[in-house]
Amino acid sequence: MNVAILGTGSVGQALTQKLDETGHTIFMGTRNVEESLQRTGKDDWGNPQVGAWIAEHPDIQLLTFKEAVEKGSDLIVFAMNGASALNCLEMIGKELLAGKTMMDISNPLDFSQGFPPSLFVSNTDSLGEQIQQAYPDLKVVKTLNTISNPVMVNPQALEGDHTVFVSGNDEEAKQKVKGVLQSFGWAEKNIIDLGDITTARGTEMILPLWVRLFGKLQTPFFNFHVNIQQQS
Amino acid sequence: MNVAILGTGSVGQALTQKLDETGHTIFMGTRNVEESLQRTGKDDWGNPQVGAWIAEHPDIQLLTFKEAVEKGSDLIVFAMNGASALNCLEMIGKELLAGKTMMDISNPLDFSQGFPPSLFVSNTDSLGEQIQQAYPDLKVVKTLNTISNPVMVNPQALEGDHTVFVSGNDEEAKQKVKGVLQSFGWAEKNIIDLGDITTARGTEMILPLWVRLFGKLQTPFFNFHVNIQQQS
Repeated sequence: MNVAILGTGSVGQALTQKLDETGHTIFMGTRNVEESLQRTGKDDWGNPQVGAWIAEHPDIQLLTFKEAVEKGSDLIVFAMNGASALNCLEMIGKELLAGKTMMDISNPLDFSQGFPPSLFVSNTDSLGEQIQQAYPDLKVVKTLNTISNPVMVNPQALEGDHTVFVSGNDEEAKQKVKGVLQSFGWAEKNIIDLGDITTARGTEMILPLWVRLFGKLQTPFFNFHVNIQQQS
Repeated sequence: MNVAILGTGSVGQALTQKLDETGHTIFMGTRNVEESLQRTGKDDWGNPQVGAWIAEHPDIQLLTFKEAVEKGSDLIVFAMNGASALNCLEMIGKELLAGKTMMDISNPLDFSQGFPPSLFVSNTDSLGEQIQQAYPDLKVVKTLNTISNPVMVNPQALEGDHTVFVSGNDEEAKQKVKGVLQSFGWAEKNIIDLGDITTARGTEMILPLWVRLFGKLQTPFFNFHVNIQQQS
């Protein structure tokens, strides 16, 4: 597939690399290509900034958001922070987004009051729903937002079963996304399709627990598993 | 221990039975004892109402909230719906609650808009914190609120590991509660102490996901497990 990855941080980098390895052609989207290429240091977490990362991955094209979606038209992956979502999509435009499938990995994290973050939308609404409502012809599939990036692209990093959730209104789009998850190594039995996009409320709302677990465990190498009673 | 169980529904019944079986003396608290004893039918879920249940468990004393806490002074278990919490505790009073340990199993579920419920407090606050703030001398320990009652008192109902979370400000009170959890069959490695009572935000906020999973799986016999990478 020709895939547009929106976002150049560590989540976007991890997904780009994995999708590239699994045979897809990636078009990475950013707000301003020249500015991005000049960012050649490390981010706050010690990961390479996009300019340094692109230099090491010359086969990946860095384009504007809009150009990336024009070329990566089979699948869009939104891998930026949630607060940027509506603005980024506005730069791409309704016409270009119509009919496309978008994996939305983002969370509505609000760091304005420091750590731990709260959510800027929750409870009776979600970021997944806000995006779907603003772009009714875009097929939004919320997934992977409950999992750290080294685990999302390599579920075998953890022993035993653990779960990835999927929420979205369009069945065909969800099938496409589930295929991508399986290509990352997610076993079919560990992919739970919760239902329509309103179920994204549930997965976005476990972020406050995720963040506290991250603080306690001091590693991103964990994930939730839904342990279900075996029928005897 | 002498234990006060506040709440006479299926959660209160399950906990009363388990604590009774494990050698404790239970004082079940209700708003109005006479009215409760007259409720001898089934609840909306087909479980026995308190009057029917007490008739089958003659060793359990049904008392007012205040009397139950007076006699069950070693541990209070709050097992009603979250919306009743502050009103129930007001009927007991600050003086009697001071210094006591309370396992808070409740969730701030708001069914006013039907199913699925939202939360009446979340994100930047939690019911656990509201109770702790209203009763600073009560030692509130939030736990078991993420687990259905047949699993909370019988973790062996599910194969393999799964997690129970604990949140609270008082270390001694948390130790007491962890001891109760272990007596229910929870392995020490599956009890995650998240930290102070503000971490109850995280566990209360996974209820929207829990509720959607319950709707999808059509069984209460499931629970979250935090799968953590094994150190090699």
